[in-house]
Amino acid sequence: MKYSQLIGKTNKESPKDEINRSAEFLIKGGFIHKEIAGAYAFLPLGLKVLNNIVRIIREEMNAIGGQELFLSSLQNPEVWDKCNRWSDDSMDIWFKTKLKNGSELGLAATHEEPITNLMRSQIKSYRDLPVYAFQFQTKFRNETRVKGGILRTREFLMKDLYSFNKDEEGLNDFYEKAKEAYIKIFNRAGIGHKTYLTFASGGTFSKYSHEFQTECEAGEDTVYLDRKKRLAVNKEVFTEEVVKDLGLDRENIEEINAIEVGNIFKQMTKFSEPLGLSYLDSDGNKKPVIMGAYGIGPARVMATIVELHHDDKGIIWPQSVSPFQVHLIGLNLENNGAREKADEVYNYLKDNNIDVLYDDRIDTTTGEKFSDADLIGIPLRLVVSKNTGENIEIKRRQENTVSIISKDELLKLIHNS
Amino acid sequence: MKYSQLIGKTNKESPKDEINRSAEFLIKGGFIHKEIAGAYAFLPLGLKVLNNIVRIIREEMNAIGGQELFLSSLQNPEVWDKCNRWSDDSMDIWFKTKLKNGSELGLAATHEEPITNLMRSQIKSYRDLPVYAFQFQTKFRNETRVKGGILRTREFLMKDLYSFNKDEEGLNDFYEKAKEAYIKIFNRAGIGHKTYLTFASGGTFSKYSHEFQTECEAGEDTVYLDRKKRLAVNKEVFTEEVVKDLGLDRENIEEINAIEVGNIFKQMTKFSEPLGLSYLDSDGNKKPVIMGAYGIGPARVMATIVELHHDDKGIIWPQSVSPFQVHLIGLNLENNGAREKADEVYNYLKDNNIDVLYDDRIDTTTGEKFSDADLIGIPLRLVVSKNTGENIEIKRRQENTVSIISKDELLKLIHNS
Repeated sequence: MKYSQLIGKTNKESPKDEINRSAEFLIKGGFIHKEIAGAYAFLPLGLKVLNNIVRIIREEMNAIGGQELFLSSLQNPEVWDKCNRWSDDSMDIWFKTKLKNGSELGLAATHEEPITNLMRSQIKSYRDLPVYAFQFQTKFRNETRVKGGILRTREFLMKDLYSFNKDEEGLNDFYEKAKEAYIKIFNRAGIGHKTYLTFASGGTFSKYSHEFQTECEAGEDTVYLDRKKRLAVNKEVFTEEVVKDLGLDRENIEEINAIEVGNIFKQMTKFSEPLGLSYLDSDGNKKPVIMGAYGIGPARVMATIVELHHDDKGIIWPQSVSPFQVHLIGLNLENNGAREKADEVYNYLKDNNIDVLYDDRIDTTTGEKFSDADLIGIPLRLVVSKNTGENIEIKRRQENTVSIISKDELLKLIHNS
Repeated sequence: MKYSQLIGKTNKESPKDEINRSAEFLIKGGFIHKEIAGAYAFLPLGLKVLNNIVRIIREEMNAIGGQELFLSSLQNPEVWDKCNRWSDDSMDIWFKTKLKNGSELGLAATHEEPITNLMRSQIKSYRDLPVYAFQFQTKFRNETRVKGGILRTREFLMKDLYSFNKDEEGLNDFYEKAKEAYIKIFNRAGIGHKTYLTFASGGTFSKYSHEFQTECEAGEDTVYLDRKKRLAVNKEVFTEEVVKDLGLDRENIEEINAIEVGNIFKQMTKFSEPLGLSYLDSDGNKKPVIMGAYGIGPARVMATIVELHHDDKGIIWPQSVSPFQVHLIGLNLENNGAREKADEVYNYLKDNNIDVLYDDRIDTTTGEKFSDADLIGIPLRLVVSKNTGENIEIKRRQENTVSIISKDELLKLIHNS
C-alpha cells in the first residue's frame, strides 16, 4: 500500500478529549477516527490490526470446537423479559428503539438471552450436546461516561462464545479449555506477560467468575495481584475470606490498575431455566442445559496492546498484529532515479508476498517520514535512499541500531521476524 | 464438520410466515434463524455462505483500488442535519435511540454523511485524490413491512463503497470500473446470467442512477427489460422520454419482476457541499469533492442465489458460495465396520484440505439423509456404504446420475469442480 494514497494519514495535533496514550497514538497515527463520544470508525490501518486480533481469536475458538454464527443486534423484549433483563432497572445500559408501529426493540448489549432462545430449536437430546457457539458481533452499551478511546465505548465488536453442556462436569472441562485458549490468545497478541487470571464475582450460580486483567496504568479496574502465583482478585470481591479461599498470602499481594481484556463465566442454568432450554438425557428425562459464557473485546485488546507497547514517539506493534509486516520509506524521491529505485524495492517485496506500507510521499521531509514511521509503529522499518546503493537500510522499531543489508538477506530476515 | 455436531439442523416444518422459497429453504435447511420480523441470525451454514459472498465482493473492491474501513452504527444527528436527512420527514426509515442524558442518536441506515464528514480530515489537496473507501457494515432500516426472509430486512450487512474524485471525469471513469466489478461479482456468485443493468432515478444531481436487477418471480421491483440489449429501466422512471433517451424499442421490452441486488449512484456534490468536503487544486483553488456511492447487500445476494438455484427438494448452491465443497454421507453407520470406513474417507478429505460436511448420524434413515442433502444443496454428494467397497458413490446435486469412483479420482474431480 502506498502511503500517499492511504486513508488515515498521521496528524500532529493531539486529541484534546482523550486521556490515554492508546487513544492519542491510535488517533494521531490514523488508525481510528472518533465519530461520537464512545463510537469510533476504524480506518484501514486500524481495521487491519483489529482483523489480525480477530483472526487470532477465531483460530483459538475454532481449535476448542467453537462454531461461528452471527446473531442480530435488534432484540425482542419478550425474550429478555423472561430473564428479567429487559427493564432498565435490571440492566441499565440498554439502547432502546421503536418500530413504526410503536413496539419497542433493544440493541443487543450482550447475547445470552437470544442465543439461549435460539438453541431451543437446536438442542433436543443428549446427543446434541456438548455444543459451543461463538460470534464476532457489535454490542451496544449505553454507558453514562466514556473515556479512554477504544478501551470503553458505547459500540464495540465482541467475541462472545457460549457453551452448552449436559452437566457441570462437562462445563468444568470446557471452562478449563477456554481458559487455556484465552491464555494463548493474549500471548499471541503480545499482552500475555502482563495478563493475570483474576477471580471476580460469580453471581447466584457460581462462586466466582474469572476475568483476564492486564496490568496497566490506564486500566479502570483495581485488582489485587499475587505476582508470583500469577493470580489476582478483583477489588469487588477482595475479602479476607476470598484470600483464604484461594490460598493467597496478604503479604505478597499488590494493588494494581488493570484492563479487563476478557472474562469467562459459569452461568449454569441462569438462562436455560427461565428460557426453557432443556434436553432429554439417555433415560428420557428432561434436564436443563448447563451454560457458560466467554467474552473478549478485540478493540479493547488493541488499545491494551498499545498501552503496553509504545514509547514517547508512538506505537511498537507486535509482529502478530502489526498492520503491515514492513514500513518502507523512500527518501528524496524527487531526485534523479530515486523513485525508480524505491519503487523497485516496493515491487520486489510485494512480489514476494510481503505486506508492505510504502511511504512514497514527495512533499514530506525525511524527519517527518521517520517520525510518522515511529508513530505508526510497524516493527521493521526499511529505508531506500541515494546512500543505500543496491542495499536497504533496516531498523527495528524498538531498537536504535541501523543495518545495511542486501535484498536477499532482507527476505530471510522478514520471514524470521 | 460432522453434521451430528452442527448447530443448524434441518427441520421439516415450513415456516408459516415466510412467502419465498429462499426463506423457506434457508430456514428449513438450518442456514438462518428468525430473531424478530426483519432480523435473522446466521447459523454456521448460513454464515459460511455469507462469508463466501463477502469474500468475492471484497476481492473485487480491492481490485479496483478500494480501501476497507469500518464506520460506526451510532450516528450523530448534527452531521445528518447538515444534509437534511435527520428528520423523519426526509428519511422515514430511521431507528433512533437516546443517550442517558437524553440526547438523540441514530442507527446508520446508510453512511454517506459520516463517510463524507470523516473524509474532511483525510482529503486536503488534489494529491489526496482519487480515493475509494468501502466497508461491510450493518445497516438498520425501520421498514414498515418486512417479508421475504433475508430479501428485505430491518437489519442487514451491506457493502458500501464511496468514491472521491477531483472532477466529473474521474468519477465517470471510476463509475465504469465499479460497473464492471459489479458484473464480475454477480457472475462469480452465480446470478450474473439473470442480472441486468437497470436505469433508475438519479435525483437532483444526475440524470440516472443504475441498479443491478436480477430477474426473479420473488422480486419486489418491476422493471422493463430489453433482453437482447441486456438493459432495463426501473418502473419508477419508465417514460416515453427515457425509452427514447436510451435508444430502446418499446416492442422489445418486457415487464418483469426483479430483485435489486446492487446499485451505483453518482452523487456529485450532494453530500460534499453541505458537509464542506473540499480540496485545493494544483492552482490553490478550493473545490468540492465529487462523490459516488456503490452498494451491495450480501444477504440479499444470498437469498437471490437461492431463488435462482433450487428445485422442489431444496437449494443447489453454485460451488463458489457453497457452505462446503462436498457433502459426505455415511450410511448404516451402526453396522460392522461402516463407521470406520466412512470416518476414513472423512479424514482423507480433511487431510487433503477439502472442506467437507459429514453426515455421521446414526439415528437417521438413508432417506432422511438424502433429503437433507438435497435441501442443504452442497453441489457434490458423496456416499459411503457397504455397497461402495473401497470406492465412493458420487452425485452432483443438479443431476440424477450416480457414479462410483476411487478415492484418487475423487480428489481430481473435486479440484476440477
